[in-house]
Amino acid sequence: MAHITLPDESLPGIVGLFNFRPETAAPLQLLAETLLRGESTLTSGERELIAAHVSYLNDCHFCHTSHASAAMAHLQCDLSLIDDIKQNFQQIEITPKLRTLLNIAAKVQKSGKEVKDEHIAAAREEGATDQEIHDTVLIAAAFCMFNRYVDGLGTWAPQHNEAYREMGQRMAFKGYVRETVVQDV
Amino acid sequence: MAHITLPDESLPGIVGLFNFRPETAAPLQLLAETLLRGESTLTSGERELIAAHVSYLNDCHFCHTSHASAAMAHLQCDLSLIDDIKQNFQQIEITPKLRTLLNIAAKVQKSGKEVKDEHIAAAREEGATDQEIHDTVLIAAAFCMFNRYVDGLGTWAPQHNEAYREMGQRMAFKGYVRETVVQDV
Repeated sequence: MAHITLPDESLPGIVGLFNFRPETAAPLQLLAETLLRGESTLTSGERELIAAHVSYLNDCHFCHTSHASAAMAHLQCDLSLIDDIKQNFQQIEITPKLRTLLNIAAKVQKSGKEVKDEHIAAAREEGATDQEIHDTVLIAAAFCMFNRYVDGLGTWAPQHNEAYREMGQRMAFKGYVRETVVQDV
Repeated sequence: MAHITLPDESLPGIVGLFNFRPETAAPLQLLAETLLRGESTLTSGERELIAAHVSYLNDCHFCHTSHASAAMAHLQCDLSLIDDIKQNFQQIEITPKLRTLLNIAAKVQKSGKEVKDEHIAAAREEGATDQEIHDTVLIAAAFCMFNRYVDGLGTWAPQHNEAYREMGQRMAFKGYVRETVVQDV
């Protein structure tokens, strides 16, 4: 049971909250769409990995598993990715550049002030651009919001990885704005 | 010096970042406007206090001081409010309901999972509604994002309280959408 009464208790995680408050849903959905599927030199798969990794570090089961599933859809890999994220990417091959960006994201998860010049320099050495660094910091920061929003209001989430497969496909290929249109408010 | 090259280095805090990336600025500005100045049974002054308190807990000087100044403008009090926020509101009179909401916000600042049934029950006992609880959690979560965005990219901020007085007036009475229109990108 969520901490507040939601109009449709069957909707999991953030979806029930979007349904409760469409005025705040609109900018939140547009932010996710822009950061994860908007124009970028980082692939959507890479950006979803950053989102899923930060969500895992924040211990947010719904966001970790759903965004890992979106990454899985983009990268065409299997459900083991969900657990590989917990191991800081031992199985999946990621580029040295993405590794440095994931490191920046992990610093942001703790505090903005944890990002030091040497973390930025390491990313630049692997070819990261200003916009890639900007977007990595903002994706990590945004998931520190989404994770707290989902868990701070005590929403429910499906437990098993398999339950997220279809959700990940929708997030990856239909996106964050159209799929979460509030229909019954 | 920020960690990335901004088009106008004279713009402080988040303003320089909005200028760098207008695509993400639009939803972020709309989110702030809706949460802090949109329709609500909490006053804008109360909501700015929640934002400023969370920003102080995250040690984000720019957001703490600017949102304290916006609260000051709404509540017509003096610059000492900026420091009173650091003392968890010893001087300013706040309602028992706002006190319970500030407590929820402080839990969210640590982690969404820190919000327990008893914190919600305490707010309800003081008359807090579902929407007030929802908005408190989302304001606190959103400032965990804004604070990390501002500090994670190493933006500069004016040091002294007095420098934020006019900024606070603009934030309070002109708002977050119109005042931050990007003109030179």
